[in-house]
Amino acid sequence: MRQSKLFTKTKKQAPKDEKSINAILLERADFIYKEMAGVYSFLPLGLRVLKNIEEIVREEMNKISGQEISMAVLQPKKLWQETGRWSEGIGKSVMYKCEGNGKVGLGPTHEEMLTDIIRNYVQSFEDLPLYIYQIQTKFRKEARARSGLLRGREFKMKDLYSFHSSESDFKEYYEKSKKAYFQIFKRCDLKAIITEASGAGFTKEHTHEFQVIAKDGEDKIIYCPKLHFSQNKEISKFKAGDKCPLCKKILKQTKSIEAGNIFPLGIKYSKAMKAFFTDKDGKRKPIVMGCYGMGISRVMGAIVEIHHDQKGIIWPSQVSPFELHLISLEGGDKKISKKIKQISEKLYKHLQNSGVELLYDDREDKSPGEKFVDADLIGIPYRIVVSKRTLEKNSVEFKKRDKEKTKLVKIKEIDKFLKQLKIH
Amino acid sequence: MRQSKLFTKTKKQAPKDEKSINAILLERADFIYKEMAGVYSFLPLGLRVLKNIEEIVREEMNKISGQEISMAVLQPKKLWQETGRWSEGIGKSVMYKCEGNGKVGLGPTHEEMLTDIIRNYVQSFEDLPLYIYQIQTKFRKEARARSGLLRGREFKMKDLYSFHSSESDFKEYYEKSKKAYFQIFKRCDLKAIITEASGAGFTKEHTHEFQVIAKDGEDKIIYCPKLHFSQNKEISKFKAGDKCPLCKKILKQTKSIEAGNIFPLGIKYSKAMKAFFTDKDGKRKPIVMGCYGMGISRVMGAIVEIHHDQKGIIWPSQVSPFELHLISLEGGDKKISKKIKQISEKLYKHLQNSGVELLYDDREDKSPGEKFVDADLIGIPYRIVVSKRTLEKNSVEFKKRDKEKTKLVKIKEIDKFLKQLKIH
Repeated sequence: MRQSKLFTKTKKQAPKDEKSINAILLERADFIYKEMAGVYSFLPLGLRVLKNIEEIVREEMNKISGQEISMAVLQPKKLWQETGRWSEGIGKSVMYKCEGNGKVGLGPTHEEMLTDIIRNYVQSFEDLPLYIYQIQTKFRKEARARSGLLRGREFKMKDLYSFHSSESDFKEYYEKSKKAYFQIFKRCDLKAIITEASGAGFTKEHTHEFQVIAKDGEDKIIYCPKLHFSQNKEISKFKAGDKCPLCKKILKQTKSIEAGNIFPLGIKYSKAMKAFFTDKDGKRKPIVMGCYGMGISRVMGAIVEIHHDQKGIIWPSQVSPFELHLISLEGGDKKISKKIKQISEKLYKHLQNSGVELLYDDREDKSPGEKFVDADLIGIPYRIVVSKRTLEKNSVEFKKRDKEKTKLVKIKEIDKFLKQLKIH
Repeated sequence: MRQSKLFTKTKKQAPKDEKSINAILLERADFIYKEMAGVYSFLPLGLRVLKNIEEIVREEMNKISGQEISMAVLQPKKLWQETGRWSEGIGKSVMYKCEGNGKVGLGPTHEEMLTDIIRNYVQSFEDLPLYIYQIQTKFRKEARARSGLLRGREFKMKDLYSFHSSESDFKEYYEKSKKAYFQIFKRCDLKAIITEASGAGFTKEHTHEFQVIAKDGEDKIIYCPKLHFSQNKEISKFKAGDKCPLCKKILKQTKSIEAGNIFPLGIKYSKAMKAFFTDKDGKRKPIVMGCYGMGISRVMGAIVEIHHDQKGIIWPSQVSPFELHLISLEGGDKKISKKIKQISEKLYKHLQNSGVELLYDDREDKSPGEKFVDADLIGIPYRIVVSKRTLEKNSVEFKKRDKEKTKLVKIKEIDKFLKQLKIH
């Protein structure tokens, strides 16, 4: 894409009303636009990142047999009354409610809606197990919404729900899901650790959270070399300095971002909503359920919290809005300037035709300094510069966003060079 | 995909509370699930169709220089107060409003939100023109919502907005957009005609609608051989039997589905919201705007209204959930049954590896009759059957969904045969 055509620009100043690194950098680089606290629109570069994360999550969910659907945002009151959650728990505390055409809610989560769908399809144990997910916009009336994409009132989420005929079958899938989650975080270049937590109103059993250690994280986790616990109501009796109840080592505390969570739901929803199946023994039993959440936009925020420096964002290659940033630095006399432009244009078209996704800084009204500042802020992992100096050596200058070192690459060797870096 | 793994089934009976063909067939074939009037969840097959239509629209919008973004659903009251639409027009009549964190609305359209974004980026005529679109979920508190996907309270929509420094530049793009719309309808196998309409509260100028003639359409249009008019308040003075004011031929009336619309917005929003630019003459002027809507889920509904027969849906190939339906008809003695299964499995894997998107009916508990009934209902355009009869001739049976004729194709010639049909 030509940067001259991109309607967004960048901002020199940090937005006044944002405190978190992810909001500051994503707004300065014009990836997102703040509509109100916890509500953001995604601009062209931001939408590209969001879609890349979505695609990683989709691929990993498909690998563990997930079937993708897309459920409605508008929630019928009567479904939530079946589980009692219309007037208590998450339905009371954070569900937006509208008056239109009778009472409807905006989905903060979809256990009720999917359990209702599923009870129409599952008859016997032979219809199970099932793994169903969606990547969809959720709404939560959060009291605190001041961490940019980390805690939104409107946010993109992947929620997978699993349905089983036995607890043991559920447990096997639950373990499988953990591996898929770690694979997603790995591809997003996030080091996540798994912690135990209470069910937060969803379940009485312990659940698991995937926490990314981050100095500005909202969560606090207690950890010891052998086991990790999330600090929350149920296990708040443990604190830093205490001895680990299992290995007796001293517990420490760190800040972190909850980037995903998985819940054993047991038969809470299936029993309340009469989602039964006939087992091998001919008996009617409630379906055993699990729930597996991951905030797509939150992961985007977490990546920025972890991968940035003083100059801006440093996107991991699999989520970056573009694979490569091509920068044309016209300058010098007219003839040389024209040559630089020509080579840049030729290279842009060649790389585009080779399938490389690249942003091409073809802006003629910006100085080299301004172009470099913007490139560092936007954070594409690889940069290629065409200038008078590089052309004198029939080369372009190559640089990784996170390294200081630059390297001259002969123009005729660019394809080979990029191939080595696994850029198409 | 293996049909045995698909959690949805099909239904023999039409749903009791639906009157429109698209809702009846899409629910019977389990593409969609009704949550409440005008609100549907998209099940695996339905989501695949929706994504295919989205992708067609995205490609055509990108071809006319559209930049994709994704704006928030939650609308700040203060933006809508700037144009006065919070308490009148579409904001009063169909916007859902929630009480959470102060008054917020659910976006029924996004003129306010995008004009607000744009006024931050556009300074001079050099920043124009701009073409910005999104494919996103919209909400409208429709009084009538009884036509399945044709009129939803929650629905997927593509809305593009264009921003220009002059009326003439706008008009040029407006004509370009018409061509893109026709290209989209062509790829969806819909014959759309363009009609004039009043602005429906968006503008005082005449707007244009893309109407698909359909016997159960909600709209009525008046047409003559040379020009077409949508019947509505402003031009309701014309009716069937009148003479066309231009060519004097007798006007006729037909039912149709409004599948898209484009609006000259003029400076209505830019003036109200102070979205100005500095022109070549140094003067500050309001940006000239256009708006280009298309209901993605509505187009899906319209396709079903047009492309179906007594047995079910007949998807146009570019939007079909799968390119090909492979059906294995085991039967006869054990040895033959095993052979049929073997060949079918081999063919499934081979076609999948060749990049063909196919649904494979590998269900062992269904009779040939049941499999054919389901295949006709689901409506994939091409069908391949493997049975005892076909294997006796080292062949498979090929059939188009919309034709009665079948054709035996030698197994070793399948690749060549499919290639001719442009199936990967």
